[in-house]
Formats: sequence, structure tokens, C-alpha cells
Amino acid sequence: MAWPAASSPLVESIRHYNRQSFISDMAASIIVAIMLVPQSLAYAMLAGLPPEVGLYASIAPLIAYAVLGTSSTLSVGPVAITSLMTGAALTEVAQQGSADYLTGAIILAALSGIMLMVFGILRLGFLANFLSHTVVSAFITASALIIALSQVRHILGIEAEGDNLFELVRAISVQLSHTNFHTTLIGLATLTFLFALRICGASILQRAGLPLQAAELIAKSAPVIGVIITILLTYRFALAQRGVSIVGEIPTGLPAFALPAFSMESVEILLVPAALISIIGYVESISVGRTLGAHRNERVDSNKELIGLGAANLASALSGSLPVTGGFSRSVVNFDAGAVTQAASIYAAILIALVSLFLTPALFFLPKATLAAIIIVAVLSLVDFSIIKKTWRYSIADSLVLLITIGATLGLGVETGVSSGVVSSLALHLYRTSRPHIAEVGLVKGTEHFRNVRRYEVKTVSEVLSLRVDESLFFANASFLEDEIFMQLSRRPAIKHVILMCSAVNEIDYSALEVLEELNRRFTEQGLALHFSEVKGPVFDRLERTAFVSRLSGNLYLSQHKAFTDLCERFHYSSPSQER
Amino acid sequence: MAWPAASSPLVESIRHYNRQSFISDMAASIIVAIMLVPQSLAYAMLAGLPPEVGLYASIAPLIAYAVLGTSSTLSVGPVAITSLMTGAALTEVAQQGSADYLTGAIILAALSGIMLMVFGILRLGFLANFLSHTVVSAFITASALIIALSQVRHILGIEAEGDNLFELVRAISVQLSHTNFHTTLIGLATLTFLFALRICGASILQRAGLPLQAAELIAKSAPVIGVIITILLTYRFALAQRGVSIVGEIPTGLPAFALPAFSMESVEILLVPAALISIIGYVESISVGRTLGAHRNERVDSNKELIGLGAANLASALSGSLPVTGGFSRSVVNFDAGAVTQAASIYAAILIALVSLFLTPALFFLPKATLAAIIIVAVLSLVDFSIIKKTWRYSIADSLVLLITIGATLGLGVETGVSSGVVSSLALHLYRTSRPHIAEVGLVKGTEHFRNVRRYEVKTVSEVLSLRVDESLFFANASFLEDEIFMQLSRRPAIKHVILMCSAVNEIDYSALEVLEELNRRFTEQGLALHFSEVKGPVFDRLERTAFVSRLSGNLYLSQHKAFTDLCERFHYSSPSQER
Repeated sequence: MAWPAASSPLVESIRHYNRQSFISDMAASIIVAIMLVPQSLAYAMLAGLPPEVGLYASIAPLIAYAVLGTSSTLSVGPVAITSLMTGAALTEVAQQGSADYLTGAIILAALSGIMLMVFGILRLGFLANFLSHTVVSAFITASALIIALSQVRHILGIEAEGDNLFELVRAISVQLSHTNFHTTLIGLATLTFLFALRICGASILQRAGLPLQAAELIAKSAPVIGVIITILLTYRFALAQRGVSIVGEIPTGLPAFALPAFSMESVEILLVPAALISIIGYVESISVGRTLGAHRNERVDSNKELIGLGAANLASALSGSLPVTGGFSRSVVNFDAGAVTQAASIYAAILIALVSLFLTPALFFLPKATLAAIIIVAVLSLVDFSIIKKTWRYSIADSLVLLITIGATLGLGVETGVSSGVVSSLALHLYRTSRPHIAEVGLVKGTEHFRNVRRYEVKTVSEVLSLRVDESLFFANASFLEDEIFMQLSRRPAIKHVILMCSAVNEIDYSALEVLEELNRRFTEQGLALHFSEVKGPVFDRLERTAFVSRLSGNLYLSQHKAFTDLCERFHYSSPSQER
Repeated sequence: MAWPAASSPLVESIRHYNRQSFISDMAASIIVAIMLVPQSLAYAMLAGLPPEVGLYASIAPLIAYAVLGTSSTLSVGPVAITSLMTGAALTEVAQQGSADYLTGAIILAALSGIMLMVFGILRLGFLANFLSHTVVSAFITASALIIALSQVRHILGIEAEGDNLFELVRAISVQLSHTNFHTTLIGLATLTFLFALRICGASILQRAGLPLQAAELIAKSAPVIGVIITILLTYRFALAQRGVSIVGEIPTGLPAFALPAFSMESVEILLVPAALISIIGYVESISVGRTLGAHRNERVDSNKELIGLGAANLASALSGSLPVTGGFSRSVVNFDAGAVTQAASIYAAILIALVSLFLTPALFFLPKATLAAIIIVAVLSLVDFSIIKKTWRYSIADSLVLLITIGATLGLGVETGVSSGVVSSLALHLYRTSRPHIAEVGLVKGTEHFRNVRRYEVKTVSEVLSLRVDESLFFANASFLEDEIFMQLSRRPAIKHVILMCSAVNEIDYSALEVLEELNRRFTEQGLALHFSEVKGPVFDRLERTAFVSRLSGNLYLSQHKAFTDLCERFHYSSPSQER
């Protein structure tokens, strides 16, 4: 195992750090910190946790990732989807608001940190590849809808909770008559303001004379403007007395680094949710890291990323906070604002620490409706139903996996949703590989090429059947090949030789070898010969270690052309007939 | 769905049935029936069920399979492995000997019958391919050991039960001091007799003048001889009074066709065991059917087999008996004895019905130790540890799957054993396909062939990178390709064009398409061009339905040779350098 810190971009960058880099990083960190404060409060609320927990998740984890991570611009912290998953998992173990609920969040962060670290050390980053992009897209779209719906109660000032679409819609419709007027006013106004600024804010500011990048950054800090205005309004008109739910007192100070007492029982219950949160968080983070890295030709190493994110989550657990991961919007802001190195994240962490130390009293009158509006606007940008149409046109089977994931997430909740997606995509993959593509090939006139007899005019002789196997042979597809061969033999009794052209066979597993041995045994019994051509080096080396090669009824040929011409010459199949 | 009975071998054979076929079938049926009686009693005992239940499982199921199955010589009934699995599942729901225990066996047979039927009708026979042959061999070896150990108590006349190796060994060693002398005598004598006849019986009889086939058949009916001798000895010396456990009274008569009352709760508990029994039973049966079918050029249709076996299990449930499947030893005996059609199975069923009606009183004094000896000799022939060495030499990863299956089956029981085997073999397969083989290729001088630059002397130009992808692209391996390309690009900045040679790509799923789109976007940004060559028809048709082709930074070429020469000519990479 390579020790990751040795080549961390932070360590690299310290050597070449100069005044220019410092100014760029500092400027980016101020913008990111301004954006992170309301987001951290909002995602803590989404997970059902006290607001200061969200702030704590945006201090130590940023520093941990800065030291161990490989992306120079990724910004970690609480994100919408993992916060939703955290909340969903915690309702299983404790009552929202209880001490056990917060302890549960810390356990999730700790487990997630340990799992990510261990996977990184064991170099198991490739496992994330098994979460298909289609499944992730579907899951994000469905979760975003659930998140948006779960925040409707804060906008309307009602009690309406639920884990899936049906529960949420029912709860909201039942409670609709209890809507609080002032809360709704603030909520809808903030929503409208944020949507307006997101859609046309940048272009209006640009027309007003601001440079494009500055205009975009200001449009993106709309949440902070919303926070300040609604705090002032709530304070000025004493809206808290009129039923507007406010954030209230947030303890001033920094997190104490310690782990709370916890029971092994809750660890066991939270093991699977922690694994799912880790996987989803990791996949989201690595895709953000890769996208941004591509612009700078920066390679993101999947195993080192696991270690970086693991460290961030352990740091979060030690600060008494919830699971974190690399977030898309904040990383893009960091990148656009011109962050050069991970030092920008460290400055941002320091700024947020300062907010936690001195500015939390100013957030007392912040309406929860404002935070809900921030969440809704953020997640609705993740909803993308166009992918259903796109996959449908491309492949119905793929779109089925997508629909299963969306349906299970909306109807049965996030955990069942992810699991169903993973299982159905794997099942589809297995089904596809269990029927390998096998083509009968013949010689293209005047060349040494062999092509599919169905697509090209080729020469064949009736005594020799040449089959090109277009996939590695393994337990689930080997008997398919066997069936195919015997079907051909029963239809065409003239066949005396079968050549398997293995140019695309990269691997033959032991079960497939047994099938080939059985095939060869039956060939020998029936006086037929089984030949192989174009067997790849590594496959051949492995076959040579078995008795298979010595027992083979036919020969091993280097090229298909050699196999075909040799058989034709030796057995005087002298006039290769143009069969098709 | 094709109605299977229409082409059942039985229906076919009735048309051409003649005196010769009748004599052959009748002779075979007598031999099979003689062999089936002790086996049926023994496997019922192995499952912890009353002896008559074993006989019932060898009447109606044989007839059901004869009508609907596709193999002309397969003989169904209770077999060792599924009987062990049945016993293991039943101890979860009821006390051995209770009415609920028997009801549980019937539920298992019914569930198994329904599952097999449904899978056959839905044409899901291919699913059995996912049970790798390596896993099945390992599972059979380990289960056979457990079965043999579980019978030691009957040989020694002690109480020593358990579900796995450790429990059994501990129970036996604790009880060893309670060994019954007479039971052990009978048990060991029968064991020795059976082993001796199995190993050298046929050759001795042959030397005594009998023809080979007859000698082998007599040697295989050794269990019946053992049964008769030990019954006589037990009766003559009143061994039952000396502590020798006997079978005792077996009700005379035929099964009443009816299903007992049952609770939905036990159905739920037995659902997973029933699925495992069905899968294992089906895989064993189809492999026997295929092996025997190969000798007669008879094709065994996997989906029709599912329906045939499903019907046999439903028939077993209706006769109040346990799950059945096609057994190896009895089918081989049937085949060797000259059975021509499934009529032989029907005659055997009639003979066993006659035994149930008239001969069960004769079995009163049959010692359980004799049955245990029959089981032990039968299953020890299934133990094959040589496969560990063979797979180890061939592929360490494959042998790891094997060891996991053996270890889990021995240490944790049959259900965990099968499940671990399936999961680990699938995981290995997924791991392998997640890293597709990608080779850089170059032009072989004087030909139009492109080969791996590492293995052949080929022409390349530094501006063009040709990569041959040797596997279908799907979600779990697409990003591996992306990484590979960017690694090459970062190492060789001269590259302006990348050609992906897709001669072995049979499928590109939607997630892989997204990766290719992203790749193309980045290529366009960086002023590079991405080309494809030798894209297969079906893959091309699908790609054409997307915007990918129109957005492509490079071109689609029919052949790799055309792609390479075209780029060299257009961009005046005029002197293809011999790079390696």
C-alpha cells in the first residue's frame, strides 16, 4: 500500500505556494464559506439534527480531506442526499431530538469513515464501479424529489413527515388545513427569490455591467442574501410570535473532539445504512472530483480518495457530527471562485470556525422556512427525468433498471431504492454476459480475414465449422456455447471439425474449462475434432497447466487462417464451397 | 410458451413402442426398483422422516416426470443432498417426529414444485447457469462429508445430531462412550460389505464368469443383499432387544392424494430453503440428464426439464412426501440396465407401489444401521477433494471460491454454504469483468491486421493511439477504459487521435455510453479526436439512435485499417514510425 499523504496535492502545493496562490485561495474560501454556512444549517435540519452540527461538519472534515484527499478543488461537508439517508437511518434507532439520535449520526459518520478508510487501504475502490451511473442518476432524481417534499412542511409551517412519496403526500394533504400564513409567506417568498436568482440572476447582473464570473458567483450566494433578509424581517415583525418556526439558540463555540458513549446494538443496526451512505457519498464525490479534475488534467486516484473521504468522516465523527462527502455545488463554486489548492478549504474551515465562535447569535431569528427553501431550490436542480426518455430510446432493459430504482426509492425509501438499483443492474449485466455472442465465421475472399457468415460473403467448407466466441468463457455462459455447438452439429451432420476462434476470449474460468473438457470428451467419442485458434497468451499459459491440451481431439492453431487452411489441406476439403 | 407434453419423449415413444422396448424397459425397471427401495428408506431417514415417506416419493413423482420430462433415462426420487437440505430446513420449523415436521417436508416439496414449474413456464432455466460448476462440486463434496458424519450415530447406536462439521464431531465425541456393541457390529459389517462390493465386487463376479454388465449390476444391488441379510440376522438373534434400532412398523398401503393443513408462517420460513433445494436439485438433475443424453444424442431442454421436475415435486407433495430430483446413481443404473424410454420409470413406480402395498411388514426388522451404511457408502463416492488441487493449479481465484463454499458448508451448514458459493463466484466474475482487457494495437507489416504492440512487431505513429477493447462496455468497466485512455494521454502528449477498435464489443450499456459521451466532450475541449473502428452492427444501430454519433469529435470507420491509413494520410503522419 502506498502511503497517500506522501503525494497529497496539499503537500505538493506547499512547496510551490506563493502570494498569487494565497490570494486566489483566500478569495475562493470566503465565497465558499458564505455559501457553506446556510447550506450546513439546512442539511443538518434535513437530517433532523441541531443546526450547529451542520457547522461542525464543515470545519474539521474540510481540513482532514485537504491533507489526505487527491482533488485540489473538492469541497467536503454535509450534502443533501447523504443527509436525507442519515435522517432516514436515524429514525430507525431513536426519536428525533433525543441524545441517541445525535449519537446515531456520530456512529454513522464513524462507521462510514472506517469503511471508506479500510476500502481505500485494501484498494477496493473499483467496487464503486458496480454502482451503475444509470442507477445513481435515477436514485439522485428520486431522492431529490423526496427531499423537496420533506421540506414542504417547513414552508407551510405544518407537521408532515415520512420516508417515501406516499407517506409524505398523505401527511401533507392531511395537515394542509393547519398551514401557518406567515411561515408560508416567508417560505414562498424565499423560494421565488432563490429560483428567480438561479434562473436569471446572473444574466441580469451581467447586463448591469458585472463581469460574467462575478455575476454568477453573486447569483450563487443568493441563499445568504435570503438568510439575512428573512432574519431581519422575522426580528423586525416579531414573526416568531406569529407561529414562524425559527432556528433559535445555537451554542457558541467549537466542537469538543470526543466520541460519545454508544451501544453495540445501534452500531449493528446502523451498519448497512452506513455502508449505503458511504457508497453513495463516495460515488458522488469521486464523480465531482473527476469532472473538476478533467479541466486541470488532474488525476483523481480512487483508492486515495477513499482514504481522504474516510478521514473526513472520522473527523466529522470526532467533532460530533454527521456523515460528509464531496458536494457538487460547493465544489463547483470553489473551482469557479478560483481556488488553486486545498489550502482554500482550510481557510474556509477557519472562517466557518469563526462563524461558530462568534456569529451564531445572529442566526437566532433565522426562519426554518428559509432553510427549507434553500434545500428545495438546491435539490430540484438535481431532478432530471429526461434520462428516462434517453435510456428508453437507447435500451429498454437499461431504462427498466432506471425505473425500478426510481420506483423503489420513491415508493419504499432511500435504502431499498439504492439496493434495488444495484441488484437489478447486476442482474441485467449477468443476464447479458450469460449469453455470449457467438458467430459462425468464414474466410473473406482474397484475404486472411474471417468474418461473420451472416454479414459478409465468405468461404466455408461443410466439414469445418468455425465459431468465433466474442466473450470470456465463465461458469454462466460456457454451457450456452456447448448448446450452440451441439445444435449446429445436429443440424449439419457433415461437420467433422469445429474450430473455436478465441480472439476475444480473455479468460476461461475453471467451470468453463470443465465444460470444454466434457465437450472434447464427447467429440472424441463421436469421432469429431475440436480445435482452437487465436488463443491469447495468458489463456494459453493457463490451459497448458492442465491435461486439457494433451487430451484435445484437435489442435491449437496460432491463427484462424492457419487452422482453416491446414484442415482443408490435410483432409482434402479441397474446394472450399461458397456456401452462402 | 410451448406446451411441453406435446414433444415429451414418452408420447413419442408410445408411437414406436414394441415388444423389444417393453422387455428392455421392464428388465431395467426391476433393477431400479430393487435399488430404489433401500435408497428411498435411507434418504427418508436422512431427512428425519418416516420410512414410508421415502417409498411414496418414489411412486407418483416417477410417473409425473415420465409424462413431462425430456430425458428418456433420468430417474427421479429422493436424493442424498436434497434430503440433507430438507432435514436441515425442517429442524428450523418443527421437532423431528412431529406432525408439523412431516407437513414441513410436504410444504417444501410443494413450494419447490411450484417454483420449478413457474421458472420453466417463464423460461428462466438459464438462471441455473449462475450456479457455477465449481461451486456445485465443492458443495456436493462438503455436503457428502456432513451426510456421512450425520449417519455415524446410526452406525454406533448413539444420539449425535448437528447441522455442521463442528456440531457433529463434538456430539459424536461426547456420546462415544454410549456406543452400542451390536449396532456397531451390524453397521461396520454392512459398511465393509458394501465398500468391498463397490470396489472389487464387479471384477470378482466377472472373473467368476459373469458378463461385465451383469457383474456391475449385481455389484450395484449390494444394498439389497445387505438389507436382506441384516433383517434376517436381527430377527434371528433378537437384536432389537439388545439395543439395535430397527425401522419398525411401516404402514401398508398407498399414499392418499391430499395436501395437509398448513400455516402461512411456516410457508414463509420455508421459502428460501425451498428455493435452494430447487436450485441444487435442478442443477444436479440437469447435469445427470445431459451426461446421459449425450450418449444417445438426446437434447435435454432446460425449461422443459424445469416443468418435468416441478411436476414430480408437486406429485411428491400430493403423496405427502419430500422434495425429489433426478438422482445420479439411480439414473446411471437405469441407463446401464438398458432402459429405452420413460416407460421403465413407470414400471419401477408400479413395482415400488407393490412393495408399499405388500412387502413393508418384511422390513420391520431392518436395522437403521444398515440404512446408515448404505447412505455413507453412497455419499462418500461423491467426495472429491482432488478438485481443490486442480483448481488451485489452474486459477487461485477459482480455488478460493471453492474453498469458501467448502468451508461455509462444513462450518456453517448447507444453506449458508450454497449461498456463500453463489455470492463469491458472482463477485469474482464481476471483479473480472470490471477490468476489461485493453490492448494497444499496431499494423502488422505487409498485412491489414492490427495486433497487440507488446506481442508483435507492428507499425504505429506517435499521433495516433489505437486501442482494442476486448470486452463489452458496461457500467462497471467503462470508467476503467476512461482511466486507461487518460493515463496514456498524460504519458504521451504527442497523441492527437485515439481510435477505439471495437471488434469484441458486443454491447455498450447506457452508463458506458455516458462515459463515452463525457470522454468525447473532454476530447473536444482539449482539441483531440475520438474515433471508433469495427463497431458491430447491433451496437452501431443503437448508437445511431443517440446524439452521440453526431457530436463525435472523430469518425466511425468500418475497419481499423481504414481508420489508421485515413488518419495518417489526412494529417500527413506520413512516415509511420516503427516505435517498438
